[in-house]
Amino acid sequence: MTIDDLDTPALLVDLDVMERNLARMADYARSRNLRLRPHTKTHKSIALAKRQLALGAVGLTVAKPGEAEVLVEAGPPELLVAYPTVGERKLRRLMEVARRTRLVMSLDSLEVAEGLSRAASQASVRVGVLIETDVGLHRVGVAPAEVDALAAAVERLPGLEWDGIAFYPGHIKSLDRDGLDQIARLGETVGELAHRLKPRIVSGGSTPTWEHSHEIPGMNEIRPGTYIFNDRNSVAIGSCVREDCAASILVTVVSTAIPGQAIIDGGSKTFSSDRLVSGGEGHGEVVEWPGAMFSKMNEEHGFVKVIDKAKVGDRVRVVPNHICVAVNLEERIYGVRGRTVEEIWTVDARAKLQ
Amino acid sequence: MTIDDLDTPALLVDLDVMERNLARMADYARSRNLRLRPHTKTHKSIALAKRQLALGAVGLTVAKPGEAEVLVEAGPPELLVAYPTVGERKLRRLMEVARRTRLVMSLDSLEVAEGLSRAASQASVRVGVLIETDVGLHRVGVAPAEVDALAAAVERLPGLEWDGIAFYPGHIKSLDRDGLDQIARLGETVGELAHRLKPRIVSGGSTPTWEHSHEIPGMNEIRPGTYIFNDRNSVAIGSCVREDCAASILVTVVSTAIPGQAIIDGGSKTFSSDRLVSGGEGHGEVVEWPGAMFSKMNEEHGFVKVIDKAKVGDRVRVVPNHICVAVNLEERIYGVRGRTVEEIWTVDARAKLQ
Repeated sequence: MTIDDLDTPALLVDLDVMERNLARMADYARSRNLRLRPHTKTHKSIALAKRQLALGAVGLTVAKPGEAEVLVEAGPPELLVAYPTVGERKLRRLMEVARRTRLVMSLDSLEVAEGLSRAASQASVRVGVLIETDVGLHRVGVAPAEVDALAAAVERLPGLEWDGIAFYPGHIKSLDRDGLDQIARLGETVGELAHRLKPRIVSGGSTPTWEHSHEIPGMNEIRPGTYIFNDRNSVAIGSCVREDCAASILVTVVSTAIPGQAIIDGGSKTFSSDRLVSGGEGHGEVVEWPGAMFSKMNEEHGFVKVIDKAKVGDRVRVVPNHICVAVNLEERIYGVRGRTVEEIWTVDARAKLQ
Repeated sequence: MTIDDLDTPALLVDLDVMERNLARMADYARSRNLRLRPHTKTHKSIALAKRQLALGAVGLTVAKPGEAEVLVEAGPPELLVAYPTVGERKLRRLMEVARRTRLVMSLDSLEVAEGLSRAASQASVRVGVLIETDVGLHRVGVAPAEVDALAAAVERLPGLEWDGIAFYPGHIKSLDRDGLDQIARLGETVGELAHRLKPRIVSGGSTPTWEHSHEIPGMNEIRPGTYIFNDRNSVAIGSCVREDCAASILVTVVSTAIPGQAIIDGGSKTFSSDRLVSGGEGHGEVVEWPGAMFSKMNEEHGFVKVIDKAKVGDRVRVVPNHICVAVNLEERIYGVRGRTVEEIWTVDARAKLQ
């Protein structure tokens, strides 16, 4: 099967580029003696998670219980739910997962720790815990000074094992001088915590900062997600170059009735309406039309401007702004080499919101 | 089952409000002698399409072939694919749909009409055609002066029956004086076309303008979608009042570690990242917390500001900015009356992008 046999919109992944991305991160982690626990939110696919494990990942990361139930099928030695999980039903479901792999949960409150402890005790399983620490994003996480108390509380709770700390420096959105200064400050914060608490695991990372992980004192685990495919945001941030973008969405021109404009058969229900984090313009880069502007979207219509040469029926590829939310809208991912479709993966954990 | 038995995020629909919305539109169409062909993109559910048909809808509207294949199960007398459909495979699939209902396609180019004619002839079916006409949105549609020629071409093509014209005045985003002026100009354009071409069907409509449809000379069909649920955009636009918003998403507070902020367990993978069309702030209205600002989202995290009273485990409902893209992210819709869950609908045509 070739790309020509695919209907559109279709999410394509260039296998050469994806394999290079996977190998680069695996090599980096190995050479720097960092545990690699990839976040599967980007692909949500069991087959791709297995590839990450085969390349040396120590486990996998997910956000929601529904994702954990799906991704445990990849056979990870450890599965981290990097999200504060609230509610008895969800915790009961996770305890079933804990019978199949070593489950680790990140959390930032005594309430969540106590709920988890009750669920683990009732199910007679043991669950690892990472204390989520706020290092500047101000999303979740206790302040660094409060980690000690919560870790001590976790150690006292039955069914739980305190594994260490987790953080997510998502506030660092560039690698310019400001970004590097922020990474230096992050190193001071994390280094001080690691020195004081001597946690077994210091787990962090975000896409822009991944190549600086070995500069953070005490950090010994990374959880990158987007690196497998990359996207326009990754390029804008500086965490990869354009040639590292493996994913694009194949679309068809369906109307050229308005002069200077092509309407493509994908909009916000195909690409998501995520803008560039850098504030840049456009909803994606049209590979075949350099200089064209994907300027506007409705649910099923993409507006591409300054394209007088486009004809109804033309098929073009669009590199999306944010691949993680786009994958979540698709049923399948097509792995291509050149024009040949070599693999088809299902987005197994799509829409597992709970 | 009650709301308390649901895990979060969960998409709730207030049945009293939804039934009032459905009845209001059906009554309006009936009293003004307008055909009602609801766009199912908002709910993508066979069960809800059946309700619309039971209330007098003459047919249903969809965008993509995959939606047509699903929604034909609701048994519509007519099914309109309101989207220029390109590609032999898609057209072959639609011809199967045409064996089960009267299929009508809107299109704006001879290329698409010829492809459709070939597919219809090969399948020995007849397909209705509406000529998509640009009345100001500049998305798809031929200019009004070009409708005659394309309609004549369609009449000459085998397998096709020219039904009339379709337009979508999505450029009218308010009902203030400017909006009413635009509706008056729309009436002139459409009235002139209807007078000149005498089409059997003049199909138009968009959410903000629906109550003015009877003022457009010659218009005899409306295709509203959002009205079944409504959302913050509908209110901002003025096409309904806040009490007409039937849908909300039930979420749980999972972290209050940052003072003055609650993190809820839904982000851009639950609500979509669609902003308000009015340019207003926020990603949704938190029903239980008047004055709180749902200011920021990541994929699975919603940031709600100025909420000191929030506790981990609190459950609140959020009225989304744009319900159509939010429904497309969910697996199920829960129909509730008070706190009782009376009905559960699957989002049958979710992610049918092709």
